[in-house]
Amino acid sequence: MALHAKSRKSLVLLSGRAAPELAAEIAVDLETGVTPTRALEFASGELFVRFEESVRGSDAFIIQSMCAPVNQHLMEVLLMLDAAKRGSAKRVTVVLPFYPYARQDKKHQGREPISARLVADLLRTAGADRILTVDLHTAQIQGFFDGPVDHLFALSLLAEYVKERYAGRDLTVVAPDSGRVRVAERWTDVLGGTPLAFIHKTRDPLVPNQVVMNRVVGEVKGRTCILVDDMIDTGGTIAKAADALKQEGAADVVVAATHGVLSDPATERLKNGPISEVILTNTLPIPPEKELDKLTVLSIAPLIARAIREVFDDGSVTSLFGGAS
Amino acid sequence: MALHAKSRKSLVLLSGRAAPELAAEIAVDLETGVTPTRALEFASGELFVRFEESVRGSDAFIIQSMCAPVNQHLMEVLLMLDAAKRGSAKRVTVVLPFYPYARQDKKHQGREPISARLVADLLRTAGADRILTVDLHTAQIQGFFDGPVDHLFALSLLAEYVKERYAGRDLTVVAPDSGRVRVAERWTDVLGGTPLAFIHKTRDPLVPNQVVMNRVVGEVKGRTCILVDDMIDTGGTIAKAADALKQEGAADVVVAATHGVLSDPATERLKNGPISEVILTNTLPIPPEKELDKLTVLSIAPLIARAIREVFDDGSVTSLFGGAS
Amino acid sequence: MALHAKSRKSLVLLSGRAAPELAAEIAVDLETGVTPTRALEFASGELFVRFEESVRGSDAFIIQSMCAPVNQHLMEVLLMLDAAKRGSAKRVTVVLPFYPYARQDKKHQGREPISARLVADLLRTAGADRILTVDLHTAQIQGFFDGPVDHLFALSLLAEYVKERYAGRDLTVVAPDSGRVRVAERWTDVLGGTPLAFIHKTRDPLVPNQVVMNRVVGEVKGRTCILVDDMIDTGGTIAKAADALKQEGAADVVVAATHGVLSDPATERLKNGPISEVILTNTLPIPPEKELDKLTVLSIAPLIARAIREVFDDGSVTSLFGGAS
Amino acid sequence: MALHAKSRKSLVLLSGRAAPELAAEIAVDLETGVTPTRALEFASGELFVRFEESVRGSDAFIIQSMCAPVNQHLMEVLLMLDAAKRGSAKRVTVVLPFYPYARQDKKHQGREPISARLVADLLRTAGADRILTVDLHTAQIQGFFDGPVDHLFALSLLAEYVKERYAGRDLTVVAPDSGRVRVAERWTDVLGGTPLAFIHKTRDPLVPNQVVMNRVVGEVKGRTCILVDDMIDTGGTIAKAADALKQEGAADVVVAATHGVLSDPATERLKNGPISEVILTNTLPIPPEKELDKLTVLSIAPLIARAIREVFDDGSVTSLFGGAS
Amino acid sequence: MALHAKSRKSLVLLSGRAAPELAAEIAVDLETGVTPTRALEFASGELFVRFEESVRGSDAFIIQSMCAPVNQHLMEVLLMLDAAKRGSAKRVTVVLPFYPYARQDKKHQGREPISARLVADLLRTAGADRILTVDLHTAQIQGFFDGPVDHLFALSLLAEYVKERYAGRDLTVVAPDSGRVRVAERWTDVLGGTPLAFIHKTRDPLVPNQVVMNRVVGEVKGRTCILVDDMIDTGGTIAKAADALKQEGAADVVVAATHGVLSDPATERLKNGPISEVILTNTLPIPPEKELDKLTVLSIAPLIARAIREVFDDGSVTSLFGGAS
Amino acid sequence: MALHAKSRKSLVLLSGRAAPELAAEIAVDLETGVTPTRALEFASGELFVRFEESVRGSDAFIIQSMCAPVNQHLMEVLLMLDAAKRGSAKRVTVVLPFYPYARQDKKHQGREPISARLVADLLRTAGADRILTVDLHTAQIQGFFDGPVDHLFALSLLAEYVKERYAGRDLTVVAPDSGRVRVAERWTDVLGGTPLAFIHKTRDPLVPNQVVMNRVVGEVKGRTCILVDDMIDTGGTIAKAADALKQEGAADVVVAATHGVLSDPATERLKNGPISEVILTNTLPIPPEKELDKLTVLSIAPLIARAIREVFDDGSVTSLFGGAS
Repeated sequence: MALHAKSRKSLVLLSGRAAPELAAEIAVDLETGVTPTRALEFASGELFVRFEESVRGSDAFIIQSMCAPVNQHLMEVLLMLDAAKRGSAKRVTVVLPFYPYARQDKKHQGREPISARLVADLLRTAGADRILTVDLHTAQIQGFFDGPVDHLFALSLLAEYVKERYAGRDLTVVAPDSGRVRVAERWTDVLGGTPLAFIHKTRDPLVPNQVVMNRVVGEVKGRTCILVDDMIDTGGTIAKAADALKQEGAADVVVAATHGVLSDPATERLKNGPISEVILTNTLPIPPEKELDKLTVLSIAPLIARAIREVFDDGSVTSLFGGAS
Repeated sequence: MALHAKSRKSLVLLSGRAAPELAAEIAVDLETGVTPTRALEFASGELFVRFEESVRGSDAFIIQSMCAPVNQHLMEVLLMLDAAKRGSAKRVTVVLPFYPYARQDKKHQGREPISARLVADLLRTAGADRILTVDLHTAQIQGFFDGPVDHLFALSLLAEYVKERYAGRDLTVVAPDSGRVRVAERWTDVLGGTPLAFIHKTRDPLVPNQVVMNRVVGEVKGRTCILVDDMIDTGGTIAKAADALKQEGAADVVVAATHGVLSDPATERLKNGPISEVILTNTLPIPPEKELDKLTVLSIAPLIARAIREVFDDGSVTSLFGGAS
Repeated sequence: MALHAKSRKSLVLLSGRAAPELAAEIAVDLETGVTPTRALEFASGELFVRFEESVRGSDAFIIQSMCAPVNQHLMEVLLMLDAAKRGSAKRVTVVLPFYPYARQDKKHQGREPISARLVADLLRTAGADRILTVDLHTAQIQGFFDGPVDHLFALSLLAEYVKERYAGRDLTVVAPDSGRVRVAERWTDVLGGTPLAFIHKTRDPLVPNQVVMNRVVGEVKGRTCILVDDMIDTGGTIAKAADALKQEGAADVVVAATHGVLSDPATERLKNGPISEVILTNTLPIPPEKELDKLTVLSIAPLIARAIREVFDDGSVTSLFGGAS
Repeated sequence: MALHAKSRKSLVLLSGRAAPELAAEIAVDLETGVTPTRALEFASGELFVRFEESVRGSDAFIIQSMCAPVNQHLMEVLLMLDAAKRGSAKRVTVVLPFYPYARQDKKHQGREPISARLVADLLRTAGADRILTVDLHTAQIQGFFDGPVDHLFALSLLAEYVKERYAGRDLTVVAPDSGRVRVAERWTDVLGGTPLAFIHKTRDPLVPNQVVMNRVVGEVKGRTCILVDDMIDTGGTIAKAADALKQEGAADVVVAATHGVLSDPATERLKNGPISEVILTNTLPIPPEKELDKLTVLSIAPLIARAIREVFDDGSVTSLFGGAS
Repeated sequence: MALHAKSRKSLVLLSGRAAPELAAEIAVDLETGVTPTRALEFASGELFVRFEESVRGSDAFIIQSMCAPVNQHLMEVLLMLDAAKRGSAKRVTVVLPFYPYARQDKKHQGREPISARLVADLLRTAGADRILTVDLHTAQIQGFFDGPVDHLFALSLLAEYVKERYAGRDLTVVAPDSGRVRVAERWTDVLGGTPLAFIHKTRDPLVPNQVVMNRVVGEVKGRTCILVDDMIDTGGTIAKAADALKQEGAADVVVAATHGVLSDPATERLKNGPISEVILTNTLPIPPEKELDKLTVLSIAPLIARAIREVFDDGSVTSLFGGAS
Repeated sequence: MALHAKSRKSLVLLSGRAAPELAAEIAVDLETGVTPTRALEFASGELFVRFEESVRGSDAFIIQSMCAPVNQHLMEVLLMLDAAKRGSAKRVTVVLPFYPYARQDKKHQGREPISARLVADLLRTAGADRILTVDLHTAQIQGFFDGPVDHLFALSLLAEYVKERYAGRDLTVVAPDSGRVRVAERWTDVLGGTPLAFIHKTRDPLVPNQVVMNRVVGEVKGRTCILVDDMIDTGGTIAKAADALKQEGAADVVVAATHGVLSDPATERLKNGPISEVILTNTLPIPPEKELDKLTVLSIAPLIARAIREVFDDGSVTSLFGGAS
């Protein structure tokens, strides 16, 4: 005594207003469109969102780039999650190419928030069943979310480019500080066993938090240094690292990172520093005023589109994770 | 086989950066100080907070005015809640003199968020045990939070002022639209049975959401109209109501509201409209550029301070709720 | 290395014992049947329920009319939800044509429950994934439930009837108190811009809660007054409003409401009051002893059946929400 | 930079309307009073409660006897819990001398609720931090609640009475069915090693659930049989057991149970059966019309009062649990 | 504007390392295979698991036998649940043929855990949506889990064997203690109304927990006693019961139980006791060193396989529950 | 109308069976005792715990060393948490000097658990309000727990010892792999700016996970190398690092780590390797068979005792966190 019907599943792509171009590019790769959404900011600063088409029963993917103003974009995605949940979407995956507040992933001192965990909890509370993200600042952030996290890596994308572009050069992979040496080591593996170096910041034990000197540890003289990081924010660390490398006799400094936060004065620093090329992806949009001649931007859209497709099809995403996830 | 100690309780007052003056005023009323907090915005737009003194075991009250940029201030208070929770505060009350997103308290159409409920859930998730707030847009928002809400009313404060200031005048209390008639009726009770009127917006059933005409329902001719609302945002509704009242022969229009959101072009509209006085409280800070000669601002700090005191002392707050809560 | 099978979905209709006729009518509209359920009350007053057929993997809809004895019917539906959850239903929607305890949607004074929120939480705890309901006393109750709420409106149903039945008359829509003016305004829109009035209850500020006088605000003389409300409980407010309207010279008073709670002495009051017709829906069953000659009951079953169908088919329900949800 | 104050704790006693006499008796034992509460049933059947005094910061104990109409009394206690939680009580213990729906503690067949677990979850959701109860139908129900359960035993109270009253007689403790033999065994221990018997209900495997015969297993001839159970509901099992015992030559049958549910026709059956005395406690009120000459009611109030006192004082309650909890 | 695809569902069978033979046998019955899983114990004692194939979107069943070392096997299954949840399995059923810690299902005294409830909560937290288990020590444990529990019974399997093997004998079903009489009664029903007896342990009230004597209550002289229990752990209770039966003149003692925990010195006791046959199922693996000539092991795999099939197909499992669930 | 009493708070210290000596040492430092607890393992491998004294209303600290068999000790602490919660402890802090499963803090590949997060959730579910731990493998694990985590550092303890013992030597701090360079950098700061080196493991990109060579990056020739890590498990990484350092001409290799897991064959490797001293703390007990002549064990008890005292007194623990938390 029941009505029966065949089950069908449908993928719905939704986008916040932070970087509609990236969502559009992903949609093209998926051979579908982005569901129209009405989103606006009232004069008071409060936001409003409404999906213009039904999301009932769908497998919804909400894409938002967490560029500035980050709190506004975060609130927008939380509102979209609530709307999707209350609109009876069957499953909601929030796609954050750049995970915000990732650097506040632990208490440095007492009485601080662990903001990256808070963000995971806010997303969960608002209705996210899953997260899809790229190159987390620390992989442990996966564990902050109480549900599946698909963690993609841009390493292959970036390294393939470097390999081709700098074929024949004597490369050294350099970590800009002691916390990034593990990441740099992964680069050396992919690049086929190049040497590794890092910048050691010495501090005065009597003056907390003040860096006294940037010492290069490892061989860099006469070599093309690939200075790698997950993100470039104000560019301070990178610029100082490039200076130190040059002083130690590096032939050339190339910067490669996944996320171009590029807060002021990053563009200035990258432009003026002894850096020959900066390679980024578009997990964060790069506005025209931040563009540089020496900047190369690789698109992350194909990788995200493939991951969404696999998630929707219940296929394996592990192969997309570059062996490291 | 246990260590014993006497229990002591301590009240700690914390403040976000939106309106430190209000927190300071409340602290003075409580004869204590605001605990120093380091709060800043990184170049990337991400926020950081840290309490400079211990909050362990305390009864903490975190005060934040939800003025623009509202999403930033909301995120700041969420981070403070997380810091207080992880810093082992015993109980945390978030004090929001103006509750944000209160007008999005239901779905008007499908596929929308219920943003006021989302805000309640975000506060809960971040660590709020209790909420203390003033004049919710709709009282049902109390029920959005899964915990105690102390809901204060500014009606006495505002009405006492009006009573004294306009003693001897023939007053009519006017609701600016049909949804606010109940609030206006409460004013008539407090003012001792003055007449009541409201503005009836007629709509064309064939053209959704378009208001055709503002009709005054009730007696206003030759009377001093007290046009009451919970908040003034862009001032559009209020300005149109004032016009309609004047057209119907009102002698005078006085505007009274608890929350001065005053988004553009509110100041312009209030200045130019046929309004003789605007009475607000400081649940939201009024920046100098929004001040008006005809604006009177009453301080909400004493009411909030008394409520905090009662909460800390486990006294009854009901007496502060003006009989209506 | 997995077994594969095609997915099928099945709709199962379950009914509490409060109003089996309504469930049967909905089943007919859906061209299915109500799944047989064994339900009984033990001599001790404890209830027992058991579904006579499997609900595994189904999209289950549990229909219960919240008529008296309301706590008994509420407990019955909670037990049914628990049985459906433990019986592995895939998704459970509780269909409450009348949402109980809706008037206790806020704290009027301190130390009271917010019963409407409590009911939402009890339903959630027992296993409800979704709620489907009609004409909530306040729309904010949607936000009390942590999940999707499909909120249907009987306004079209009632207004169509009024339009046809009273074509040619001079109509005024009247709200029986200040809190219902917004609802009445919606009626005026649907009826094409009829005038609006309401009953203003004046109170003596020295004697709390005592109404001194019912004043009609708005034009009613010589007109057919459509006195509208969401529900008629004991009929006191409606009867007094009808009296006041007659005293102000109304030609005729017609009462229209969605929910006929009709607690004693409602029938008596409606019968004896200056009311020419009472129009209700069957969201609550009207027992024979409460029937009146002047009572017209419109069936809500087609509206609910269509909504269930859309929910099951993942279609859009927004179109059923009369533009207002 | 904090306000300091000494901590004080206060015990507040609240009572539902089911059995105010028991609460009053407990209050006297505790040398305090029951906090006045306004509770009423609206004409529609919906309930309303409001505490007339503040419960802020208190250690609140809400006492309710779960007699008929049980769903009404359950809803009342849920509303009181919500009111206490929202009224900022520090800790709330719900005192249920008789735990309702205790016999529905497992699924007997598929598609049934586990009502006793549901009740535990409803209490938790509404705001109960702790439960204090007497003689659960099965001790496992303690595990249904996600928090502390203080489980008191009336065995000592009942057994002391039996020991004194029937000193010198040849006693046999009898379980009325196979599921209660363990309880009866506990009685034999307390009574000093008396023999044990039980009633074996044989069923026809071809006719489900139909009992064919009541066989006495164990020695009862010429002995005073103490027929023990946790509750007497309709009295059917007890009456049949008494008949069987008499047929096997029992000298005398005395019935002892903690909870007197006494649903119809219990009083009739106990009166007419071959039973010389019925011993109960007042965990459920015994209305005058259900009283019997041969009925002895022992008060549970002192035991509950002592437990509340220990809970409030953070003392050990284990000593009150008769060694068995 | 959405991508559509047909829904397919897939059953994935996963197995912990405790008893891979049982999982393999179930897989054969289901005509599928067990998904390969890498599981190992690091030198430190920490465990690691990884599924070698994707479980995305699957209906996963994780089978684990809770034999010794039980905490290790429990942790392994919790890790597998977490992996399945994070690996985006759609629904996860944990199949525990023997539910661990089932005997700690209540507090015997204060300050103890309710371990069986804790296990249910741990399973839930780790990601179990459902539990499938056999012959719970007490059926109430179903209510410890906040989700569906499919509770299978081995009674038919065991009783059919006994019926056939001991056809023509005068049987008495015997419960080894007072808490198991209800279980024994179910056996008598299935065996067609055989007599019933049990072992009454008398205790000295002055010496807590010390059993003074095992008294047989019921007729056993000259009869073949089927001594039934849910599990045999160290065999102490069973061995003493067998001795007491023999002393009372039993012709023969046959032991039947679902779960063979067989902790030392169970094998020794069963071997040396006056027991002619021991009948068990393989819900727990029986290692070679614990085998006995008089031991008969019946396979539970077909019953579990049928239940899994029904769960996957959304069929009714009730028919498998032997009428008692 | 309430009973009043003064509030007192009491600290109760409870200990699992893994390392009672550490708990005893902490108790001595706190000038109190460890509350007696009955804990045992049944023959079946299931555990049982019972506190011998009341924990009602207490501030309970449960100490457990997570040495092998780790799953057993983890289950024991979960049972103790459940017992404390159900025994009405007011607040429960679980003290884990070594946090188990800390190295499984992210998914390395798909379909793995994040075991360190699972452990945090299990602790929370069982009843832990807070965690107190020492030197987490990665600080992000703090964010896995939904509550306060007091994270202590042994760095000062270890570094003070090294400073004094190796005064006058030319020290180089060495990280045994690329992921530990940040930790080593912290040592260089505390030791006053010594040089820094690390071991770079090169991998063959064609052969996953296979390390080809250990290259020393940084200056070590003729220097005393302090090889630092958070834990020593099987000692493989440390032994290979020591070999590489010696090959590069290091004068001396000293190993310093907080946690001595010392799984086989760690003792053998440390004994035979070119290591002059091994410095550990007693966060994990070092059994006699694992002791070495060159092993120095520093006690962590004073640090933990001070932290517990501050937590109980609501003092600041930040000062104990060595400036880094």
